Amino acid sequence: MIQERNIRVGVLGATGYTGLELLRLLLRHPDITITVVTSERSAGQTFSDVFPAFRGQLDLQLSPLKVKEISKQTTVVFSCLPHQQSMPHTSAFLEYGSKVIDLSADFRLDSTAVFKEWYGAHVAPQLLQEKVYGLPELYRDQIRDSFLVANPGCYPTATILGLAPLLKNGLIAPESIIVDAKSGVSGAGRNPKQETVFSEVDESLKPYGVERHRHTPEIEQELSKLAGCEMHIRFTPHLIPMNRGLLATIYAKALKKMTSADLLRIYEKHYTSETFVRILPPDQLPNTKQVRGSNFCDISVRYDETTEWITVFSALDNLTKGASGQAIQNMNLMCGLTETTGLLGTALIP
Amino acid sequence: MIQERNIRVGVLGATGYTGLELLRLLLRHPDITITVVTSERSAGQTFSDVFPAFRGQLDLQLSPLKVKEISKQTTVVFSCLPHQQSMPHTSAFLEYGSKVIDLSADFRLDSTAVFKEWYGAHVAPQLLQEKVYGLPELYRDQIRDSFLVANPGCYPTATILGLAPLLKNGLIAPESIIVDAKSGVSGAGRNPKQETVFSEVDESLKPYGVERHRHTPEIEQELSKLAGCEMHIRFTPHLIPMNRGLLATIYAKALKKMTSADLLRIYEKHYTSETFVRILPPDQLPNTKQVRGSNFCDISVRYDETTEWITVFSALDNLTKGASGQAIQNMNLMCGLTETTGLLGTALIP
Amino acid sequence: MIQERNIRVGVLGATGYTGLELLRLLLRHPDITITVVTSERSAGQTFSDVFPAFRGQLDLQLSPLKVKEISKQTTVVFSCLPHQQSMPHTSAFLEYGSKVIDLSADFRLDSTAVFKEWYGAHVAPQLLQEKVYGLPELYRDQIRDSFLVANPGCYPTATILGLAPLLKNGLIAPESIIVDAKSGVSGAGRNPKQETVFSEVDESLKPYGVERHRHTPEIEQELSKLAGCEMHIRFTPHLIPMNRGLLATIYAKALKKMTSADLLRIYEKHYTSETFVRILPPDQLPNTKQVRGSNFCDISVRYDETTEWITVFSALDNLTKGASGQAIQNMNLMCGLTETTGLLGTALIP
Amino acid sequence: MIQERNIRVGVLGATGYTGLELLRLLLRHPDITITVVTSERSAGQTFSDVFPAFRGQLDLQLSPLKVKEISKQTTVVFSCLPHQQSMPHTSAFLEYGSKVIDLSADFRLDSTAVFKEWYGAHVAPQLLQEKVYGLPELYRDQIRDSFLVANPGCYPTATILGLAPLLKNGLIAPESIIVDAKSGVSGAGRNPKQETVFSEVDESLKPYGVERHRHTPEIEQELSKLAGCEMHIRFTPHLIPMNRGLLATIYAKALKKMTSADLLRIYEKHYTSETFVRILPPDQLPNTKQVRGSNFCDISVRYDETTEWITVFSALDNLTKGASGQAIQNMNLMCGLTETTGLLGTALIP
Repeated sequence: MIQERNIRVGVLGATGYTGLELLRLLLRHPDITITVVTSERSAGQTFSDVFPAFRGQLDLQLSPLKVKEISKQTTVVFSCLPHQQSMPHTSAFLEYGSKVIDLSADFRLDSTAVFKEWYGAHVAPQLLQEKVYGLPELYRDQIRDSFLVANPGCYPTATILGLAPLLKNGLIAPESIIVDAKSGVSGAGRNPKQETVFSEVDESLKPYGVERHRHTPEIEQELSKLAGCEMHIRFTPHLIPMNRGLLATIYAKALKKMTSADLLRIYEKHYTSETFVRILPPDQLPNTKQVRGSNFCDISVRYDETTEWITVFSALDNLTKGASGQAIQNMNLMCGLTETTGLLGTALIP
Repeated sequence: MIQERNIRVGVLGATGYTGLELLRLLLRHPDITITVVTSERSAGQTFSDVFPAFRGQLDLQLSPLKVKEISKQTTVVFSCLPHQQSMPHTSAFLEYGSKVIDLSADFRLDSTAVFKEWYGAHVAPQLLQEKVYGLPELYRDQIRDSFLVANPGCYPTATILGLAPLLKNGLIAPESIIVDAKSGVSGAGRNPKQETVFSEVDESLKPYGVERHRHTPEIEQELSKLAGCEMHIRFTPHLIPMNRGLLATIYAKALKKMTSADLLRIYEKHYTSETFVRILPPDQLPNTKQVRGSNFCDISVRYDETTEWITVFSALDNLTKGASGQAIQNMNLMCGLTETTGLLGTALIP
Repeated sequence: MIQERNIRVGVLGATGYTGLELLRLLLRHPDITITVVTSERSAGQTFSDVFPAFRGQLDLQLSPLKVKEISKQTTVVFSCLPHQQSMPHTSAFLEYGSKVIDLSADFRLDSTAVFKEWYGAHVAPQLLQEKVYGLPELYRDQIRDSFLVANPGCYPTATILGLAPLLKNGLIAPESIIVDAKSGVSGAGRNPKQETVFSEVDESLKPYGVERHRHTPEIEQELSKLAGCEMHIRFTPHLIPMNRGLLATIYAKALKKMTSADLLRIYEKHYTSETFVRILPPDQLPNTKQVRGSNFCDISVRYDETTEWITVFSALDNLTKGASGQAIQNMNLMCGLTETTGLLGTALIP
Repeated sequence: MIQERNIRVGVLGATGYTGLELLRLLLRHPDITITVVTSERSAGQTFSDVFPAFRGQLDLQLSPLKVKEISKQTTVVFSCLPHQQSMPHTSAFLEYGSKVIDLSADFRLDSTAVFKEWYGAHVAPQLLQEKVYGLPELYRDQIRDSFLVANPGCYPTATILGLAPLLKNGLIAPESIIVDAKSGVSGAGRNPKQETVFSEVDESLKPYGVERHRHTPEIEQELSKLAGCEMHIRFTPHLIPMNRGLLATIYAKALKKMTSADLLRIYEKHYTSETFVRILPPDQLPNTKQVRGSNFCDISVRYDETTEWITVFSALDNLTKGASGQAIQNMNLMCGLTETTGLLGTALIP
């Protein structure tokens, strides 16, 4: 594929947190022009009036979602709409010739039946088959050729990247996997809810979605492909009093005796060519602060001799590698650009 | 035992966070008088000069640790000294007739060998045998008759209370236990360290002490007694950007099929007479905010049909039920008072 | 007045943050029984089902607001209803014989005209005259004899207590007063709003209500009485990323040369009999953390020789001395109890 | 001046927060190469071993401070050393031909006598005269020609930018200026201190440095030049429980009647050519969150008809426009680059 220069991009649902993060990152991308930003609620207002941080940087007017018009102005459309609001428009965008990167869950699952169980009826089931699951570390080549990419969820990204080397190498008991995940509050979105009011969250810590969290089938789908058998996991998310950051602490029973050093070598080898997956040295452990605002996923792995449990720690920024940064990584691949374009740089610390 | 009226208490190492919390709670206790507070660093200063919150409430002068003098002024001594600084003085206090409640790890372990492995040589090994482990829900009667109580650690309290009904009833595979624990920063103490500087902790999330955390042998000791066999667990603590609060998320493989409702009944029955352990109704999950500053430990339990994992959530305030509140609960028992005296009341929310 | 034993109290609008704090404090009060708690939204539910922190402590059922029934069950009614929702019911409560302490702004102003300008028409204007403004440090005797107390706002409490010694002693230029106030987020209430979502507030700092904040006329009314002339202030509130706590930094031009030591003596003398106003020693400054959850207002004062500005720092917990603690202080006075009953004790730190 | 391509830069004291922020920004700068990073404490370690966020981005080895060697490798040296540790080396760097941008207070003051009063004896007093005060909005042309730039403090930057239009236009009474400033904790540096421990700061709010804060003479020096007369201000800083962000709320008495709209026009005109100073529209107020990690200073101004006070709100990120971003802005000027190079882009929100 010839590299497209000056890629024109549109962002649907630009006023949520994933839209905001996407635009922050796109402003630093050398090869794109932002041509359209949509919001039903704020249509007519300037983006920088809604988000003063963007004053002087993105003074584009927000418009309502009009598929045909937007297609004319875009090479790539990022959909940051809520779940189930993206699928009705996607076919039309594809027919009009825009590539689509969807950040909702609308196209992540392969099975119409599983989608129905967790979200309700799918209005464009054929696209579930046509899409590519946008985890570049697993599906880089398919993403390059794709016109519709389903951008993974934040918990699935951390979990799948954390477990891939173990499953590929057949090192763990499939029925033993525990994923104890922790996320900052921005994952709950920008709309006001009782449970995200500052005074409810600050100085608090709690599990949520314990019975049924919608990221479970997405994780299980991808782990099953990696393992070559149907996988079920115990997935438990927790809400952490911070804005950004996600840590998956993953436990799995080792099938044979080994050492932490063995595991480190396996992980380093597995991810040796990956820029955005960093296997930490043996004296370090992931800290979400070290990836805040960056597209890295930091991973450590340990073997406990006494109990024979393997523990994997996988940390990322839920809005960057867990959403909008990964979406740009996918765009770079789909448009023939260098995969890391516009995505390097370090976390905002402290 | 006849109830002692107007119990005179002393607090050693009163200027750390457990000392501070102890004094906050003791000020509300109707049956005690605070007679001595010690601090090597701040000796000579008034307690309320060091902690302005106590102005007008506790204007006692801080003194250096002089065992004989303190014994004369106290019925009960709470030791909030750092690990290994308490054990050299304890025998003397007991000989002079003061009861001792030790909040450090100095007397929690039963085995001199295990103590040596984790902390170094013990200078009063006979007291390891004489002490009672101060978890009233397990050892109420022994505590009533004891002169030396080893007050449990915060992680052990949450974990042991969370697992006791499962182990007592033989419901789980002993080698399957995962304890994924999360704690606020006050657990790391008041002394300045690089890793507890505000800008390092705020907006961060990380595991720590993954290879060897000193609470592991304490937890394993008590779980082994409950199970009647030697137990090993995979224990992984995490640091949460908040002051107070601790949540243990505990996973264990069920030995037979059951339901969450079955487990709820078992837990409710097990803790039916306990004031400070609250089994939450089936539509609720623990949140550390709901126990902040109170002596409650809130517990939920769930069974996952697909994976046959049991998940227990156990939340408490690391400084209250996880330290100083529990110490007063022990004092009440040791002095023949109603166990809940001075300890009822609700969390500070929001 | 003869002391009433076992005062029966009701709390209207019990599920907001001032209601919650009031109930936390009332549970520790030795002379009262909580007989009624109301909530339109949660009527029928148990209080502890809505707020799990209260499980086992307050398992009363929430009822809708029925004036006559509630009057029969109460000696004192605390109204924690939103502004303008309290004034329609107050006359009836008073006629039925319940004393009323109103925590909204409905009765704080003396002037019907000023009330109309800031809130709209008043439906019970005669009560504006009958009420007593519930700041015990100013109106203790009137409160003792009152049946309707208008509990002051949080900003007014901190500001008026901070300025009273200066105005009473005629030390400052009346037109020079600047009040730069800072408050935690709980002051904005429990209802979800865009601007109180965690991710919007956390790691942020901003002024708000700069043109017109409704606490301005309340502050000016009371300062004018203290000064004996009409006073106007420049009042600027700021939102701080924390739950509780309020600091008013007050600037006023000195009318003559003096020293910080002079001012300290004046403040100490002015508040010498007040338990809940603490004038800090010269080497300390107020910190909201030192009053969190307690009924104290901590004050420091400084004179700057170079500029001849006096600076007063006045810190309190907006939900305690700034709302519900002060309401109980008023109840104690109205019911002939010792003013400090149930209100002593220290902050929750850390 | 001819533009220098590929400017080689060194950072002294690279492991503090201003060093860290400088390196984060320099990694995004297209025209520079980072050749040296120094740290006495961590010399020999790789920068990314000390700060895992930089893994794969800056794997340079930290070296001790050796002036001659560093000069050979650098066009520009940024000194992020603590106060008084920079001045002994600066002359040598200049003699060896490196330009120096000093982020400490060592060269900010013009007067040796004033420096002595606040910091002690100056070891290179002639440089106090030769330096340029690095506030580009005031001294752009002088900075272009300078070899030694004293990078302003964070409070001074916000305050001076906030007051310049009022002083230049003679609109306020000079003796009336109040600066009530609020800062996040990163301003206190990375070294552990009792007062920056997380549990001491979190959920707290306090004034500090009330009698003498070292930024006062720096602010007064620059305001005096702007006003053309000796100026004294009442400057009061406060510590806010957040990492980054600074807000100066500035009060000054208007010399004549005006409106907020008049003031807005004056500010817009004054800063019309400035990229990094944004005058907000009349319906907005600064929020530190909107400038976090960006080089903007957001300003609003209001006139209060009742009291005739003008209030200015000036917000910036203390580590970016308040330190390291401004340092790069100065470097761009000193090296003939476009002033905004590497500095555009929006805040990290949420």
